[in-house]
Amino acid sequence: MIRKIGVTDTTFARGDMGGLAVKTLLEHGKKRGWSVEIVRYTVPGVKDLPVANKMLLTNEKCDLAISLGMVGREPVDAVCGHEASTGNIAVQVQTGKHVIEVFVHENEARGSEEKLGQIMRHRTVEHCINALELLFDKQALEKRAGTGKRQGGPDASFVKLY
Amino acid sequence: MIRKIGVTDTTFARGDMGGLAVKTLLEHGKKRGWSVEIVRYTVPGVKDLPVANKMLLTNEKCDLAISLGMVGREPVDAVCGHEASTGNIAVQVQTGKHVIEVFVHENEARGSEEKLGQIMRHRTVEHCINALELLFDKQALEKRAGTGKRQGGPDASFVKLY
Amino acid sequence: MIRKIGVTDTTFARGDMGGLAVKTLLEHGKKRGWSVEIVRYTVPGVKDLPVANKMLLTNEKCDLAISLGMVGREPVDAVCGHEASTGNIAVQVQTGKHVIEVFVHENEARGSEEKLGQIMRHRTVEHCINALELLFDKQALEKRAGTGKRQGGPDASFVKLY
Amino acid sequence: MIRKIGVTDTTFARGDMGGLAVKTLLEHGKKRGWSVEIVRYTVPGVKDLPVANKMLLTNEKCDLAISLGMVGREPVDAVCGHEASTGNIAVQVQTGKHVIEVFVHENEARGSEEKLGQIMRHRTVEHCINALELLFDKQALEKRAGTGKRQGGPDASFVKLY
Amino acid sequence: MIRKIGVTDTTFARGDMGGLAVKTLLEHGKKRGWSVEIVRYTVPGVKDLPVANKMLLTNEKCDLAISLGMVGREPVDAVCGHEASTGNIAVQVQTGKHVIEVFVHENEARGSEEKLGQIMRHRTVEHCINALELLFDKQALEKRAGTGKRQGGPDASFVKLY
Repeated sequence: MIRKIGVTDTTFARGDMGGLAVKTLLEHGKKRGWSVEIVRYTVPGVKDLPVANKMLLTNEKCDLAISLGMVGREPVDAVCGHEASTGNIAVQVQTGKHVIEVFVHENEARGSEEKLGQIMRHRTVEHCINALELLFDKQALEKRAGTGKRQGGPDASFVKLY
Repeated sequence: MIRKIGVTDTTFARGDMGGLAVKTLLEHGKKRGWSVEIVRYTVPGVKDLPVANKMLLTNEKCDLAISLGMVGREPVDAVCGHEASTGNIAVQVQTGKHVIEVFVHENEARGSEEKLGQIMRHRTVEHCINALELLFDKQALEKRAGTGKRQGGPDASFVKLY
Repeated sequence: MIRKIGVTDTTFARGDMGGLAVKTLLEHGKKRGWSVEIVRYTVPGVKDLPVANKMLLTNEKCDLAISLGMVGREPVDAVCGHEASTGNIAVQVQTGKHVIEVFVHENEARGSEEKLGQIMRHRTVEHCINALELLFDKQALEKRAGTGKRQGGPDASFVKLY
Repeated sequence: MIRKIGVTDTTFARGDMGGLAVKTLLEHGKKRGWSVEIVRYTVPGVKDLPVANKMLLTNEKCDLAISLGMVGREPVDAVCGHEASTGNIAVQVQTGKHVIEVFVHENEARGSEEKLGQIMRHRTVEHCINALELLFDKQALEKRAGTGKRQGGPDASFVKLY
Repeated sequence: MIRKIGVTDTTFARGDMGGLAVKTLLEHGKKRGWSVEIVRYTVPGVKDLPVANKMLLTNEKCDLAISLGMVGREPVDAVCGHEASTGNIAVQVQTGKHVIEVFVHENEARGSEEKLGQIMRHRTVEHCINALELLFDKQALEKRAGTGKRQGGPDASFVKLY
């Protein structure tokens, strides 16, 4: 079974998360024996991503999209990020397909380029694996249910409930 | 009459609320003589829940979904929670079916893991009962109308209006 | 002409606004000679109201819904109220029918149970009359247009414009 | 060519902006030789306006709606205004017709009834002219493009770009 | 291949960004050998833009829209900008076509008219080029993916990820 994955990213981001996503999806897919076809689409900024995802899921018939973007430092940028996410959720609900959002906020790195790079790298790679498992191995996610997984930083501790 | 319930949860949450929900629905359903079939679907984080609920309600023909997630500590996490809830309401309005949201905010526990566990446990169990009653015994909820019920903490006092 | 009114309310609210609404609609309708049929539906909290209204307006073919809920004290509760209202507006736009929202914020009463009761009582009764007039006597509202009407507190002063 | 304009307003507003809009549309339309038919609909508050606009644009086949409302002083009122505007934009996108929103925030007048009256008066009249031009003379708006027009206060200065 | 571009702008903006966009699209299109047809539509303010874009994309069958507006200084204006952007994203998701938003916030210029003009000029021109490339040369954007491009100010530094 071949699954088609859309990768949408931006010229605004301060690192080529889209390119890293394509590389990761292909390499990790190959390692696990999962056939993946990729369509990439680069747009200016995060607010252009929802329609890009819609296009890939509908016109290109992708089975899932990964949408990578950076949210700038100012309060007005945070609002743009919120609008983009709201749009991405609308696209998902409308198409019935996942859009795995990999958004990095510049503020998360508190001014360090090294940390910014680290967050972008880890969050991209870990969410690519999530995306592949949603398509090829849903049980893998259920096994990690409620275990405090984080993408782009250390996992959180978790509490036994029953 | 068998009713099909979708349970959606996340790998992000710091406790297996999804597993507890499945257990509670089956046990409580059995005790009350209500036949319940369950479909579970685990996704990475709360923003992935709306489309998961849509999939279960539409593709899997579930009659109702319970959607369990944790909202992190930072302001940006609160925004994610808001986006997820907005999406869940859109899914409900579109499908005409309930999505009972069991969201726990890390901040509610003010840093105590014990309290966090308590809130997750109680809110999950109490909302599972709400969900079952919405499907099998709507009158039960009407009897509690306007009585200050809380899930995950003590009930509030209430005021006689007429 | 019989008009069918849906009444949706919650177990969360700290007073039986739903019951008071049913009573008021029937009594006031009778006094004015308007035939009213009522369908009531109680759900856990305000975020469950939009789909409940959708169900009554669509499945039960109600002509209008009154949706009564309480918004808790914390900032996170205010967000829930906002999500519920956004959903209720979406339901209205979709169905082309009114959902008269009777939401009371716990904070409005500044800690006084007596005041909380007063607000719930007045807002419920006054909005029931608004709802009946929207169905049976639209001219009545036009006569009060721009006169600073408030539900649950004293009316505001108004300014002559022309 | 006769164009049908819907006028929606509220009983909450502290001035009869709806009545002033009807008067202005008829008088200004007559002066310019534009045939206008008007349907008015008064609802309780701003959150009831989106569906009222939907009804007029769809059921009454109005070509455009003007929607006049007042947003109260408290933060919770600002949220209501935001919900109403979001709904009005949804109605426009859905119907493909304009809803010209004339919202006055009580806070704009900083407590002065005289100033409140002035803002309501000017904003209503100027937006009625905008609405008429959108229907009968689109070129008029293009001539004012980017010139810092304000409704309800003095225009802003503008900058030559090319 | 001729592509049709919609240009929507406002009378509220303090500079004729719409006119500059038309000029830039035609000149830059000519230079690159791309055939462009333009439809312009001026409305009062940013909240009127979503439906204007919808009209041009649907009724006028434009392939893409550029939507230029200014967001005023007050907090209430920022909310209007947010509502407009949310609407523009909804229009895109619904039509499956891009709406390239060129919004300038008065506050960005910190009171300087010269700086305000600069931002309006650069952001308009750079986004017109983005828009043309989305229609005629998608590869150009992919080559700039993740390179920290900014419209209306200096580009940001970027980080090598792989």
